[in-house]
Amino acid sequence: MALVNENFLSLASGYLFPEIARRTKAWQERNLGEKVLRLGIGNTTEAITPHIAKAMHDKIDLLSDRTTYTGYGDEQGDTALRKALRDFYHKQYGVELEDTDFFISDGAKSDAANIQELFSSSMIVAVQDPAYPVYVDSNVVGGRSTGFNGTNYDGFVYLESNSENGFIPDVPAQKVDLIYLCFPNNPTGAVINHAQLKKFVDYALENKAIIIYDAAYTDYIREPGYVRTIYEIEGAKRCAIEINSFSKNAGFTGVRLGWAIVPESLESENGGPGTIHRLWNRRQCTFFNGASNIAQAGGLAALSEKGREECKGLVDYYLGNADIIKKGLESVGLTCYGGVNSPYIWARCPCGLSSWDFFDFLLEHAHVVVTPGSGFGPAGEGYVRVSSYGHREDIIKAVEAIKEHIND
Amino acid sequence: MALVNENFLSLASGYLFPEIARRTKAWQERNLGEKVLRLGIGNTTEAITPHIAKAMHDKIDLLSDRTTYTGYGDEQGDTALRKALRDFYHKQYGVELEDTDFFISDGAKSDAANIQELFSSSMIVAVQDPAYPVYVDSNVVGGRSTGFNGTNYDGFVYLESNSENGFIPDVPAQKVDLIYLCFPNNPTGAVINHAQLKKFVDYALENKAIIIYDAAYTDYIREPGYVRTIYEIEGAKRCAIEINSFSKNAGFTGVRLGWAIVPESLESENGGPGTIHRLWNRRQCTFFNGASNIAQAGGLAALSEKGREECKGLVDYYLGNADIIKKGLESVGLTCYGGVNSPYIWARCPCGLSSWDFFDFLLEHAHVVVTPGSGFGPAGEGYVRVSSYGHREDIIKAVEAIKEHIND
Repeated sequence: MALVNENFLSLASGYLFPEIARRTKAWQERNLGEKVLRLGIGNTTEAITPHIAKAMHDKIDLLSDRTTYTGYGDEQGDTALRKALRDFYHKQYGVELEDTDFFISDGAKSDAANIQELFSSSMIVAVQDPAYPVYVDSNVVGGRSTGFNGTNYDGFVYLESNSENGFIPDVPAQKVDLIYLCFPNNPTGAVINHAQLKKFVDYALENKAIIIYDAAYTDYIREPGYVRTIYEIEGAKRCAIEINSFSKNAGFTGVRLGWAIVPESLESENGGPGTIHRLWNRRQCTFFNGASNIAQAGGLAALSEKGREECKGLVDYYLGNADIIKKGLESVGLTCYGGVNSPYIWARCPCGLSSWDFFDFLLEHAHVVVTPGSGFGPAGEGYVRVSSYGHREDIIKAVEAIKEHIND
Repeated sequence: MALVNENFLSLASGYLFPEIARRTKAWQERNLGEKVLRLGIGNTTEAITPHIAKAMHDKIDLLSDRTTYTGYGDEQGDTALRKALRDFYHKQYGVELEDTDFFISDGAKSDAANIQELFSSSMIVAVQDPAYPVYVDSNVVGGRSTGFNGTNYDGFVYLESNSENGFIPDVPAQKVDLIYLCFPNNPTGAVINHAQLKKFVDYALENKAIIIYDAAYTDYIREPGYVRTIYEIEGAKRCAIEINSFSKNAGFTGVRLGWAIVPESLESENGGPGTIHRLWNRRQCTFFNGASNIAQAGGLAALSEKGREECKGLVDYYLGNADIIKKGLESVGLTCYGGVNSPYIWARCPCGLSSWDFFDFLLEHAHVVVTPGSGFGPAGEGYVRVSSYGHREDIIKAVEAIKEHIND
């Protein structure tokens, strides 16, 4: 008698993006022929760059010749790509890792969701509030919550990020086992400095907790003094897993390629030294068959000097958009966070409007779609996330429309 | 205090392929300069075909232009590809499915491993013996076994496939909840007819069980009378999930693309109608971000008339290899199964040798690597699996070498 996994049934319905889509569609039906400008989803819009595209074309040519064709690759990823990532971390961040610490995947979302499977279902989970919903949802499926209480999930520890703490929460007041952190933060755009992150690493070492550090936006950091990889912090190799991706710097949101760093030196209470690393290897070998070899060829090119230059160009472009959005919104009196060292602007709703009220206002009057902050957790209420992913001309139009209607 | 998932610790070490690699490497070190011929892993060797390669090149060109670039696709897969699969099932198999029943993935292995997450950890699992190890391992991680007993996992029901039942096991004698079936079978090469599979579907409907049907080798069926998709059987849409892939017909083992069919009409005891379908959708939206858009463009081309023709050429090639292997081994008195309607030859070890003894013999004397049948489960003891994936010239050399040394 087949019974579905009750933990899946505990998941509250995926409310945010379907609801945005529903309201946008309804508006379009009422306003036929009007164009909507979308600054909602963090979806890249600019072309794959020439050096990276060429590497993928070349890979297809190799696959099209039986003398150079290759089938299954290593589940952990191509050796050359793992080595290139290790070298990149050394050169760019001054951090020493082993190439075998890097596991190539089809993207940061998969890793962010799957990583919890490594841990006991009894683990107490801490997440930033607001946060990317995947951390919470995957741990609900992993059986670590006792249910949704209408606002958030019972059993999880929510670390509130607000304007008072500069969107950098304090370490948990109680004992937790897994801590999800994301910097530059999605959705608030906050970046973390060494002293702030060191408190989390020290907490984790002291409490034998594991930090899952999502660094998917790290290439957007352009100011000094902020952490670009958690392994810049002493002791992190014993307590932190880092997740990253080629989505937001090389434009691989659809091509799909990411990596997780699961150092052999990670410590767990059961299973002995190296267990977390060894089990992630086993997990990937059992549940995964490697990322697409074409995408991996593109990723390798993205790490070359020429590729890095091209990626920097893409990130510069989106940061330029972010600057336009931030300055535009501030010019009409909105309080904004992020938008520097980050592609996201976290804007306070004016006049005490709720996130959804301001969403409706912007859609109705400016014809611009943003993301209601409350969709990222209760502490996001009263904010909207404005994404800088878009063509420059659309960004300018959207900002002008917002300015016009907030001035009204 | 981070504790790892105890279910992962219950997994017996992945013995088979590492042990093959270890013995092969040791032999090569003792026999410097000698070439080993590999008929072990089921890994494709022939080039991606022109029409499919062109579609992937074209997709990269579209991604390289900001006016045609696309980022995130739907987690469930591109609409056009899902429709093309639905049309293909209708035209090729006379089966009616909805396009929304198809979920595009990065390959059959991921789906085969992840699908168990949908079900309660209390489910009793039946697997064929021998079987592809992922079904068993993923359910161990899912908490459905009480431990490895040295031969197999306690708590699972093993359906023995042997020469007496033609490698088609009978339905379980007891009540089970999840049944994994694979036809054409890996490793035995057996194919199933309608009457035989109908018994399983009837069993599942009667016992409210779910069948997970792995049809990854279905394109190798060339003789009439065998089932190509489980949905040919009446009632299967209420009790069966099917998994398939572009790996073995389009050569996408490294490119990565597959699909699962999870019909809305599937029934479970809890959660109400449509729950399994709805939860798989939610699972894919939470744990996955879609297959690579380049691979999906290739998959769409593979389903076109021209693409199907090219894939048929690839499958013909491997079936030609299988025929050479089967006839060659039979000519020196070995008893062989499979190798027709399947890329795998399941060969009885001569003279009462064990699987590993015969493996060692073939490596030592013929310099050929095969896969010991015992690695697929206890009922595989006394057999080796010979794979037809290889260049024709290597297959011929390997078969001649085997013939020569078995004649000795």
